[in-house]
Amino acid sequence: MASSPMAFIPGKAPREAPRDQRSDSPIDTPTDARLGIICGSGVVPYAIADAVVRRGRPVVLFALRGWADATAVQAYSHHWVWLGQFGRICRLAHQEGCREMVFVGGLVRPSIWQLRLDWRTLKEMPLIVRSFRGGDDHLLSGVGRLFEKGGFRVIGAHEAAPEITAPVGALGRFGPNAAVEDDISHGFALLAAASAFDVGQAAVIAGHRVLAIEAAEGTDAMLDRVAAMREARRIALAPGIGVLVKAPKRRQDRRFDLPSIGPDTVTRAARAGLAGIAVVAGATIVAEPQRLVEAADGAGLFVVGWPDPEKPA
Amino acid sequence: MASSPMAFIPGKAPREAPRDQRSDSPIDTPTDARLGIICGSGVVPYAIADAVVRRGRPVVLFALRGWADATAVQAYSHHWVWLGQFGRICRLAHQEGCREMVFVGGLVRPSIWQLRLDWRTLKEMPLIVRSFRGGDDHLLSGVGRLFEKGGFRVIGAHEAAPEITAPVGALGRFGPNAAVEDDISHGFALLAAASAFDVGQAAVIAGHRVLAIEAAEGTDAMLDRVAAMREARRIALAPGIGVLVKAPKRRQDRRFDLPSIGPDTVTRAARAGLAGIAVVAGATIVAEPQRLVEAADGAGLFVVGWPDPEKPA
Repeated sequence: MASSPMAFIPGKAPREAPRDQRSDSPIDTPTDARLGIICGSGVVPYAIADAVVRRGRPVVLFALRGWADATAVQAYSHHWVWLGQFGRICRLAHQEGCREMVFVGGLVRPSIWQLRLDWRTLKEMPLIVRSFRGGDDHLLSGVGRLFEKGGFRVIGAHEAAPEITAPVGALGRFGPNAAVEDDISHGFALLAAASAFDVGQAAVIAGHRVLAIEAAEGTDAMLDRVAAMREARRIALAPGIGVLVKAPKRRQDRRFDLPSIGPDTVTRAARAGLAGIAVVAGATIVAEPQRLVEAADGAGLFVVGWPDPEKPA
Repeated sequence: MASSPMAFIPGKAPREAPRDQRSDSPIDTPTDARLGIICGSGVVPYAIADAVVRRGRPVVLFALRGWADATAVQAYSHHWVWLGQFGRICRLAHQEGCREMVFVGGLVRPSIWQLRLDWRTLKEMPLIVRSFRGGDDHLLSGVGRLFEKGGFRVIGAHEAAPEITAPVGALGRFGPNAAVEDDISHGFALLAAASAFDVGQAAVIAGHRVLAIEAAEGTDAMLDRVAAMREARRIALAPGIGVLVKAPKRRQDRRFDLPSIGPDTVTRAARAGLAGIAVVAGATIVAEPQRLVEAADGAGLFVVGWPDPEKPA
């Protein structure tokens, strides 16, 4: 499972929105109004929809054609939309009484030419073109601004349902030992350094050595690469050494591109011969916590939530 | 082609050798004595051997079993050795009258258990074990110290034959345009930031976006990944956008792990849909310059040597 609350657009661009976009506190304002969820691929959108509904708040899904899971979407009130139909989404969301929107799920960064632009989107082209230059981070924050101009508040999935993020500490039966903790710190430091370049939400570290860094390929592909290198004996370390470290990019707009992990991440990490997974607590979505813990316990892997370095204790 | 003067051991460890190990000036001392070349995989060892011989200096090759090319090696006076036979290499090199040694060619980082240790190597185990902890950089500098303790001067391939490194400027018919120059600077800055973590000798940047960063997989695998992402439309950019940026790690011991490019690098970069390749002039080996230029000109790619940021102009 790749990163999740929409793997494409926040950023380093000048912010127009006045509020602190990184506020991590649960939102206690219009909880009666339906929450609009713009759904990319994967299971995370439904995990979040369920969590929000459990909190007593109704949802409406805007399922992106080509990305959202057609079967999963049917369990919720929903509309199918194309990427780029900003005007249509705004209109439908207003009709549904939404005042807040969440972006969630995988999405491969589209080419600007692949968008099905509607009229309203076209009017906003200068902002969109600007957003398309630069990293994913940059692109997603542009889209965020677009929706704010459209009259919505854009919130993070972790704000709509904080309980879906990783807590501090071990999630399953196993925890990291001291040697691995060293690699975890090393990995988080590397990701922090790389994130100034709008890249590097994940890396694999083993014995203080960086085996892989993620860029456009995504976490799954990176883990598969480590598995392949191990199989080809390009990595000569014994299995059971190494950790997958995932973190949101520093200073990024967490409303869009929070990392996520799920049972599949655990399975791939196990196949890559790793000892475990470390994520940033409160800033990483755990899509199917029970299945994830079962997978981790079964494979003998640890999954640990690390205190958020960007959040004062 | 991966990085070349031996892709494993320099570093951040305390230096015992008194001289400046990064001296880039050609060495004018014992040029009459045979130069010992410890050969890993690829064609670079022979390109360097040829260049050194052209300079009028005899060479003797120490071909690493399992890595060096058995056919290529026959054209030179040589000995076959196992990785880990430090004592045997020292003895043979002394017999051959070598006073300087060069490490060159690809080498997958071995597990310490895969080494065929001879007696002398065993005596040095504490240093070796220390060297095996940490990045490749660290490992190679440990091996360097070992040879210096054995009475040899370890020099860089670029010192033995400076003409085999990339010059400043375009190598073929094409040069980078202004937009690509931006990506090149961005890429070099990223590599500089990552190199503090003993990682990141190469990256692919396109339109200010980082598509891939290299860790243990090597440059070839990284380029193939970019090609695959483009094919799978995970990267939606038009072909002809993007640059491969390669740099030696900062402050690393350039005697061991200088990056190298060759015709094959150009072919893979072309397959990955890139506009060109940028390397650090004077600190990147160009193994087969003529074939490389032909490949670049044929594919419409630029290959450019960038002024070395670590070298005062």
